[in-house]
This record gives sequence, C-alpha cells and structure tokens, in this order.
Amino acid sequence: MGLHDNDSAGDGNAPPSGDQDTTMSIEKIFEAKEVPSWKDQITVRALVVALVLGVLFSFIVMKLNLTTGIIPSLNVSAGLLGFFFIKTWTKLIEKVGLLKQPFTRQENTVIQTCVVATSGIAFSGGFGSYLYAMSEVVAKQSSESNYANNIKNPSLGWIIGFLFTVSFLGLFSVVPLRKIMVIKFRLTYPSGTATAHLINSFHTPQGAKLAKKQVRALGKFFSFSFLWGFFQWFFTAGDDCGFVNFPSFGLKAYQNRFYFDFSATYVGVGMICPYLINISLLLGAILSWGILWPLIETRKGVWYAADLSDSSLHGIQGYRVFIGIAMILGDGLYNFVKVLTHTLIALQKQLKNRESRTVLPVNTSSPDSTPPPLTYDDQRRTELFLKDQIPTWFAIAGYVIVAVISIITLPFIFHQLKWYYILVIYIIAPILAFCNAYGCGLTDWSLASTYGKLAIFTIGAWAGSANGGVLAGLAACGVMMNIVSTASDLMQDFKTGYMTLASPRSMFVSQIIGTAMGCVISPCVFWLFYKAFPGLGTPDSQYPAPYALVYRNMSILGVEGFHSLPDHCLTLCYVFFAAAVAINGIRDAVGKKWARYIPLPMAMAIPFYLGAYFAIDMCVGSLILFVWQKVNKAKADAFGPAVASGLICGDGIWTLPSSILALARVNPPICMKFLSRQMNAKVDAFLSS
Amino acid sequence: MGLHDNDSAGDGNAPPSGDQDTTMSIEKIFEAKEVPSWKDQITVRALVVALVLGVLFSFIVMKLNLTTGIIPSLNVSAGLLGFFFIKTWTKLIEKVGLLKQPFTRQENTVIQTCVVATSGIAFSGGFGSYLYAMSEVVAKQSSESNYANNIKNPSLGWIIGFLFTVSFLGLFSVVPLRKIMVIKFRLTYPSGTATAHLINSFHTPQGAKLAKKQVRALGKFFSFSFLWGFFQWFFTAGDDCGFVNFPSFGLKAYQNRFYFDFSATYVGVGMICPYLINISLLLGAILSWGILWPLIETRKGVWYAADLSDSSLHGIQGYRVFIGIAMILGDGLYNFVKVLTHTLIALQKQLKNRESRTVLPVNTSSPDSTPPPLTYDDQRRTELFLKDQIPTWFAIAGYVIVAVISIITLPFIFHQLKWYYILVIYIIAPILAFCNAYGCGLTDWSLASTYGKLAIFTIGAWAGSANGGVLAGLAACGVMMNIVSTASDLMQDFKTGYMTLASPRSMFVSQIIGTAMGCVISPCVFWLFYKAFPGLGTPDSQYPAPYALVYRNMSILGVEGFHSLPDHCLTLCYVFFAAAVAINGIRDAVGKKWARYIPLPMAMAIPFYLGAYFAIDMCVGSLILFVWQKVNKAKADAFGPAVASGLICGDGIWTLPSSILALARVNPPICMKFLSRQMNAKVDAFLSS
Repeated sequence: MGLHDNDSAGDGNAPPSGDQDTTMSIEKIFEAKEVPSWKDQITVRALVVALVLGVLFSFIVMKLNLTTGIIPSLNVSAGLLGFFFIKTWTKLIEKVGLLKQPFTRQENTVIQTCVVATSGIAFSGGFGSYLYAMSEVVAKQSSESNYANNIKNPSLGWIIGFLFTVSFLGLFSVVPLRKIMVIKFRLTYPSGTATAHLINSFHTPQGAKLAKKQVRALGKFFSFSFLWGFFQWFFTAGDDCGFVNFPSFGLKAYQNRFYFDFSATYVGVGMICPYLINISLLLGAILSWGILWPLIETRKGVWYAADLSDSSLHGIQGYRVFIGIAMILGDGLYNFVKVLTHTLIALQKQLKNRESRTVLPVNTSSPDSTPPPLTYDDQRRTELFLKDQIPTWFAIAGYVIVAVISIITLPFIFHQLKWYYILVIYIIAPILAFCNAYGCGLTDWSLASTYGKLAIFTIGAWAGSANGGVLAGLAACGVMMNIVSTASDLMQDFKTGYMTLASPRSMFVSQIIGTAMGCVISPCVFWLFYKAFPGLGTPDSQYPAPYALVYRNMSILGVEGFHSLPDHCLTLCYVFFAAAVAINGIRDAVGKKWARYIPLPMAMAIPFYLGAYFAIDMCVGSLILFVWQKVNKAKADAFGPAVASGLICGDGIWTLPSSILALARVNPPICMKFLSRQMNAKVDAFLSS
Repeated sequence: MGLHDNDSAGDGNAPPSGDQDTTMSIEKIFEAKEVPSWKDQITVRALVVALVLGVLFSFIVMKLNLTTGIIPSLNVSAGLLGFFFIKTWTKLIEKVGLLKQPFTRQENTVIQTCVVATSGIAFSGGFGSYLYAMSEVVAKQSSESNYANNIKNPSLGWIIGFLFTVSFLGLFSVVPLRKIMVIKFRLTYPSGTATAHLINSFHTPQGAKLAKKQVRALGKFFSFSFLWGFFQWFFTAGDDCGFVNFPSFGLKAYQNRFYFDFSATYVGVGMICPYLINISLLLGAILSWGILWPLIETRKGVWYAADLSDSSLHGIQGYRVFIGIAMILGDGLYNFVKVLTHTLIALQKQLKNRESRTVLPVNTSSPDSTPPPLTYDDQRRTELFLKDQIPTWFAIAGYVIVAVISIITLPFIFHQLKWYYILVIYIIAPILAFCNAYGCGLTDWSLASTYGKLAIFTIGAWAGSANGGVLAGLAACGVMMNIVSTASDLMQDFKTGYMTLASPRSMFVSQIIGTAMGCVISPCVFWLFYKAFPGLGTPDSQYPAPYALVYRNMSILGVEGFHSLPDHCLTLCYVFFAAAVAINGIRDAVGKKWARYIPLPMAMAIPFYLGAYFAIDMCVGSLILFVWQKVNKAKADAFGPAVASGLICGDGIWTLPSSILALARVNPPICMKFLSRQMNAKVDAFLSS
C-alpha cells in the first residue's frame, strides 16, 4: 500500500486540544453517574423544550436570513437554553416531589441536537437565498432570463413538500461518516466541542473542584463576551459601522479584508483549533488577499471588464469563489479517496477474518504506525460511542430509499428539474457532504452555500436557459445545500454527543424528529414574514433578503456557461486544485514529524473567498493561548478550553437579544465610522454646512 | 486651639500609595550607595543634557500651545531621556577609562528638574494664551475694545525682559512650602512620584530582585502605553476623531462630557492617587455635569441669553468656570489659613524654647494626635530632605527683592499695568500658589490657567476699559500664571527629589538655572514659529492658537465687569465657596475615622470646568487597583505603582514622536468618527451621492 496510514490531515495536525484539555479526566468525575439507555435519553420533556426552542431559533435564523444572510452557529445557545429550561422544570418538579428521572447531560445533548436540526432547516431551506430567488419579486430585479418557466412563487404547500423530500438525505449520509470524523480523525469541531464543554460543566457532580473552577472561568468569559457583544451593538447604527469594521491595520488593509473584527466567537474558536489550522488560514489569507487578488486586480480591464462591480462573478469575485472552490474540492477529494481506499482494504481484511463485529477504521491501521495512546476520557467515550450501533446497511438503505422517493417526487414540484439531474446530485452529494463535514471539523466553518453554488452552475448549465435552467439550478442548489449543510451541522452534534456520552442512536432519532419539526416550522415562520412584510426582498425594504438576488444572478451566470467567467480563471482553478492534491500528498509522504509544518489546503482555501478577518481573529486566539502556555502551561491547558467556550457561548447567546432588539425595531443609537482623512474633511464640511 | 491637628485633607486621605508601596524598602536597596554632596549633584554634563532637552521640550510645548493648548506633564519624559543621554555618555566615557564621577539618581533628578523648569516657561509664558492675546492679529478677530492701548505686538526684547522679571518669583514662593506639602501633608504628586519611581528603578543596584521585577513591569506597561498611544494616533485625522472622543456611555453622556477617553496617563494617575481623590472627582463630575449644568441649561433664555455659544462666559460656561473657581478658592483658603495658624503657633512655641534648628511643622502636632510610624524609606528621605536647608529668610528676602524689581520694571513694559496692581498680585500670589501646589499634589492637575483667569478679571475690571484694562488684565494674568504654575511644577520636582534623595539645594539651583534658560529659549522658539508661519493665530491656519482669542475675550468680559455674568452665577459662587469651607470644617471636626468618607472639595471642583472624562479615567485606574488588591494584595502593592508609572511614562513619551510627526506634517490616515443614527443616515446619503 503506497499510502502512509494514520498520517492523514486530521491525524497529523490535531493533538486535539479540544478533548484532552483538562489535566484531570472529565469522565473520571462523571464515573459514578449512570448513563441512561438510549431510549431513556429521549424524554417527552426534552422534545417539548426542543419544540419551543426550535420555534424561537427559527425566528432568529429567518430574520438573519432576510437581513444580512450571515448565520452564526447556534449549537451553544441551544445547549445552554435547553439546560436552563429543563433544569428549572426538574427543580420545580423535584420540589413537588414528583421527579422520576434526573436530568442528565445526555438528555441535554438530545435537546441541543434536536434544536439544531430544527433551526438548521431555517438556513438550509434557502428562504433568504435559493428558494426566494425563484420568486417573481426577485426575478423582476434581475434583467435576464425572466421567462415564466424560470419563476416559481413561494407557497406553503410545495415548500413543506420540498423540504420533507430533501432534508432527510443528509441525515443518512452523515451516519456512516461519524466514526471516521469523530473517532478516526479526531477532528476538533470547535462549536460542538464548546457545546460539549458547556453541557459537561453544567452537569458536573459536586465536589469536582477543578471542574467548578472551570465553570467559573467559563462563566466569567461568557459574561465578558456577552457584555462585549452588547457594548459593540451600541455602535452599529448603519452599514460599515462598529467594531466589526475596525480597520486595525489601516484602511488599505481593510479594503483587502485584513482587519481584526473583535469577534469573541472567532477568538474563542482560534483558541480551540490547533495552531496549524490557524496558521494555514492566515497563510491562505496572505496568499489570496495579500498577493493573488491584488495581482489579478492589476489586470483589470484586460482579464475582465473594468466596469464590473467588486461582487460580480464575471470579475474579481469570480476568481475568489472558483479558485477557493477548486482548492476545497482538491483537498476534499484527496482525503475522500484516501479514506475510501483505507476503508475498502480494511473491509476486505475483516471479511476474510469473518469477524461479526462492524469494522472500525481505527482498528485497521497498517502495522508500521503506532496509534497514540488513548486517554481514559477517549477510551470511555469511544466505548459508549460504539455501543449503540446504527448499522451501515440501514444508513445506506435509508439513503437509497429517500433518494428514490425524492427522484420521483421532485420533478412534480419543479418540472424543470429532470429526474436524472437529481440522480447525479445524489451520487455526488455524499462526497461533498464528506468534504464539508471534514472542513467544518477542522475550522468550524460550514461551506454549504459554496457547494450549493456549485450545483447552481453545473445543473443550470446542463439544463440551459430555454429549458428553465435558472430555476433548475436554484432547485438543485437547494437539494445540494440541504445534504451538505446537514452533514456538517449534525457532525458537530455527534462530536458533542461523543463528548457527553450520548448514544448515537438517541442522537439519530432526535435528529430525525428535529428535522421533521423544522420542515413544518421553518416554512410557517417564513410565511409569516412573507405575509407580514409585503415588500420582502426589495432592496429598500426592512427585509431586503440580499442573497436572493445574488443567487438568482449566479444561476443566470451558470446558464450562460463557464465561458462567461473571467480570463484564466479556469486555468488558475486547475492549478490550485492540483496544488491542493499535491500538498496533501507531500504531507502524507514526509511523515508525521514534518507534516505539522505543512499547511492544510482545506484551511488555506476558506479565506480565499471570505477574506482574512476571521483568520486574524483565530490567530489572535492562538496567540493568547500560546502566551498563556508560555506563562503557565498547566493553567492554560486546564482553563484554555473553558475560556474559549465562554467566549464562543457569550457571543452566541448575545445573538438572541440582538435579534429580538432588531425584531422589535430597536436600532442602535451610534455609528462608529471609519473615514480616510480626505473623506473626513469632506464629511466635516458637509456637516458644518 | 479649635482645630484638630494632623487631620488636614492631605493627611486624612493619603496613606500614600506612592511612597510606601513596595513591600521591600527602596532605600534599603540603595543604602550602600553614597549620596553625593549637593554641589556634586549638579554636574556640567547634567546641565548640557538639560539644555538640549530643554530646547527639544520647548519646541514640543510651543507646538501644543499653538495647536490645541493642552499640555501634558513632561516630568517623566524628562527623567527618562535624561537617563538615556547621561547613561550613554557615562558608558562611552567608562569604556575610554575616563569616568571620574558615577551617574547617580540625584544627578538624574537634577537634569529632570532643570528640563521641567525650562519647558515650564514655554507654557507659563503664555505664547498660546495671554501673551499672544495682546497682539493685533488676535485683537482684530475680537469685536470690542480694540483701542491702540489694548494692543501690544510680540517682540523678542520685551518678552525676554518680561519673563526674567516674573519667572523667578514662583521659585522663591515655593521654597518655604516644600516641607509642608512633601513632609507634613505627604501629598501624592502623581507625576513626581512616577518620575521618582522611574529614576529609582533605573539606578537600582544589581541584585535587587523585586526592583528588577518592578522595572520589568514598568517596562512592559511603558511599551503597552506607548504602543497604545501610537495605535490611537492612526485614528485621529480631524477633530472629534479617535479614541479620545469615544462616547463609551452614549452620545448624550458624551455631550455632558461623561466618557472614557482611553488615556493611559490618567488611568495610571488614578492608580497612584488615593481612592478618596478619585471618588471625589467623580462625585464632583456627577454633581456638576450630571445635575447642576443640565438644570441650569433648562433656564436657558431666562438666566442667560439663548443665542450664546456653549463656550461663552456670558452663558453656561460662565457658571462652570466661576463656580469651580469659587470652590477651589474656598478649599484652598481654608487649608491655607489652617496651615498658617498651625505654623505660627508652632513658631511661637519654638521661639520660646529658643531652639536654634529650623522649625518643622511635623514636630509640632498637638498632643492628642499620634503621627503614623514612619517607614525606613520615609525616615531616610525626610532626613536627607532636611539636611541641606534653604533658610526661610533667604526665600522671603529673595521673593521681596524680586518683587520690588518687578514692580519697578513691569510698568515700563506694560504702561497700562500700574505698580499697585502688581503689588496686590504679589501679596495674593503666594496664597494661590499654595492652593495650586496643594491641588496638584492631590490630583496631578495644575490649575495655573484658572488662577490666571482670576487675575484677568480682577485686574482688568480694576483698570477699566478706557485705561487699557484689557491689556492690563492679560499682563496680570501672565504675572499670576508664572508664579502659580511654577509653584505646582517645582513642587512635583521636590517630591521627586524627596524620593530620590536629591538635595533641596541642588534642586533649587538647577531650578534657577533651568528657569533662566527657559526665559531665553522659549521666546526664541516662539519667535521662530511667529516668523515661519505668518498666519499664526488666525483660525484657519496650521497654528490657530485657539486660546489666544479665548483669553482676549475673557479679558474683555472682565473689563465690562462681573455684572455681565449670567444671572445667579455670583450667588451660586458664594454658595459653593461656603460649601467648600464647610465640608473642610466637617472633615476636620469628625476626626480621621470618618473623614475618609467625606469627599475633598478641591478634587470635586476640578471636573466642574473640565468635564467628567478624566475623573472616569482615574476611577478606572482605581477600579483596576482595587480588583488587583482583592485578587493579590501583595503583588498589587508591590507592582501597582510600577504599572501606573509605566502607563504614565509610555503615554508621556509618545507625545514626543507625535509632536514630531505633527511638526513634519505627517497626518494620521483614518478618522474614527461617532455619529448618531440620524446623522449617519445623512452622511451615508451624502457619501453615496
């Protein structure tokens, strides 16, 4: 076998600061506590709370969809609020003397998983993007391809039907991947890890001193992060205002998206992620926004038309998006092929030995590699994670059955979407789901919408303009996004479950229930917005849904074909795809010792499209942890993850009141603006006149 | 005797965190080092360095005078730069083998004192205020009282003459006060204390571990504070830009001058000042800017004309300035009378006992009070501070001789200034010098310009408009400011000298030399500016000298008489004057135990005029120290003053490069602006149009 086992990206870089963080074992503390059976982990009270929170979170996500289109991870908030609800409930019941079943962290995880599944649909349903892009309101704003067969107005009936047919596929595709991602690769999943820390800390039995101290550290930084978010809010009246747009390195750097955006969330994420990831992100940011894009911009007017806006896919934005996608695909495919090969070889071996137990990749490493010794925590968690199996045949059968149903049904909803388009999507989707779950495990960043855009371009081009290609592209985007987004969201949950000893079966069931709830709740919430605000989706309204128009325009571009992309873009894509594969090859070839000095292409690609700001946030997190470890290693190791979780949670919870403030139309009073000296002189002259 | 001794404001509140800060005695560390005789403390190399730095600092101060008019304390920078110059020098000489005299901290203090005396003249010379207010350029901008006898254009000759006649008086008036302020009252003098810490830390003999650690802490926060100043600079293109104008508590609070202005200097000062001072400042700020001024503003149009600008002394600004002055005078006079009574009684006693040694107030406390036990540091410092006496008769004789010369000379320079005006000023001046030195010792804030304004009003009114009262007022202001400003500046130096064991005699001599240098250097530097920039003093020029016009307007108001003040202002002044006396009386009556819960009127009055922002900075400093002491008392006590000094020094030194940048016309690139939501919408509309 030519490949070096146990040396994959996930293994090489992640002495996972997330799991082995406490100098004292967490599971030792919890040892005395019995883990309930998987059926007992799903209680009625948990589902009731999940329903309430699901509705609440769907509102929040929908509002964010329709205003800015940027949705933070809500795992942490779900875990925290779930705890508060059930804890209050059980305390009340306990006082009355009727408490039958104590509140366990597994039950807490089940609630969190269910809420995430429900509110996830509010994002992947595309109410602010592909789905609403089909409507007449948005089509009118775009000049081209406005034939009747490229328009489909929203209606409660078909939306619910559509969501039910596509939303469960991601679930089934995730199940076989969970062992690879969580146990074999030991990926970090920062949000999932933070949530698990939070849930564990809430349920820590009394007497565990360190844990109590950790909770206090978490609480302190939670409050700080929350108050910081609150403070920031006051200065964000209007666009480009507030700390989020602070040009820390000057205005020129800010224009190239190099700045520190004061996001407590990403500083926390940076503290949880391994150094290599953060350095890779920064390298990628410097390579793209520091060197490549400025170079390409010097060819403005030669490689692409000079009169295009910065966000046009025919211009500079095209390079950013497609080169990034190429690199992500290169890395994802390399790892997919590698893992597939390993798994197949291992399967073959196991079949020869006629063992009845399901085969785990972790047991099949080639003889020349010695797996690192597992801590007690990891041993116990792995044991419980593998206890309640979900057979792989069940997952595959489920996937095939749902796929067949959906191939038959979908063309009735979108007659432009031929059955063979859907078939092709369902064949490719698991690969992309793998890529996304893998990338998200490394960096906490879900690129579902990027994969969705890929579907827009390929299927749109295939169908062609005359055959309703614009609508077909958008619908394909929806199908793809649902699978890929679910894959990363639920893998975060599996990581949480792994760290809280929740059974994969109870997780799976709560995910199914949550998804089903989401398929009904989200369209209803959207319908409410749609009916309450008639101007929904027009630029000057309160809910402009900016991404709807962007998606429609992308679909139109896709129909016109890749040849409409800027010059040399495709060539550059090939180069970066090859580079991603090559770097991964080198990483595997040089062995573990050197691999930790070679950046990860997947991590490098993410800033290509988004900019350097979050990479800088994360590097600040790394720097804080690094200095802390220099000053006091023991303390940093014990409290680092708690502090990081506190930062992530506090900022996460702040999105709740901030959304409520926005819904109540309470606007922040001050704009902190950054102007160049020349511009400032002009503004001062204007204000004094 | 009706008064309770040892219970004065200075004693009651100041368990001086400045002197008794280190858990280990500083003077124990220095014990092995011989203190040179006072003549050996003044070396030729020290005077050469002082001359170079004096010129440099005069440039900086002059530039600040002519741009914003706000001058920070430069003691620390002088101490630091003096050290670097001489240290480099001695190291070079040592290598050659020619070093005769080692570099001592006393020599360092002498340099610092000399530089402060030199650059102090650049401020108290009034080149940006009263002196330039006499010129034709400024007179033209003001509508009234432009008779020829109210104008006097600057000329090198008379300015130097004027400065030589008035600048030495402050020096003599300070000498008898030094023992009262430094030894009897143990006032803090934050800048002086910080400078002393800096100088001590530089000269600490090797092997003193704690001191080394303190130096490291100081260095760390010095760098932080310097870099923070540097970072802030980038965002200050234009007025109202940058962190200095950050509306931390909202725009409404900002308009009432309640905000945190991110000044590392004042946070450091707050850490050195006792809690009571900071709380008093905040109380005063809340009383004035939070309650009194808003209340008075509701009477706008009734008590004073509605069309007046915010800065008109006929309007709200009149209340602010005069009520503040009334309270400061009340407190200052109370303490002056109290101390005078004590001193006279003690003198009487001593004369009875026919002791030959000079009498110290510290030995004369009444039997019912027990002075706190002195630490070794304080004992040693007091001993050396009292070793080289400057006889009181010498100080008084000096004062009288210089006063007589000046009374004869000044009317030749300003024929509008009658000899009896000057006589009155010289009789009152020592009282006000006492007030200012005392207040500065408490809060680090010199109110020289406030006392100067008082002279403008009284003498201007006395002279009357027809007799050149405007010019007489401005000249009187100059005479007053020179005395009062010197009193506080040099008292800071005496504190530094006390803490570094420098002889009062060597300090006095270096002050005389420094003052003489300043009387020549400052006018020359001003002349350079005056000749290089012909538009000097006009609003749109690079050097608008904003305070020159303000001073002229005040003088015009003074000539028109107090009856032109807004309604009820004089009544309120009486009330607050009485309140200041009463509070002091109560403080002395209730005894030490309760006195520390009663605010100091002097500290309360300062924000009346300036606003709450620096009080908030200082309270932040208090808060940091308070939390630190809760967490780790020993560490906070050992490192607090070092950290505070680092903060003050770093920010202080940053003024050097920032002034150089400004002189080189390098402007900051970005403006961080704060706009209300409505205003922001307007600006956005303007920018996009």
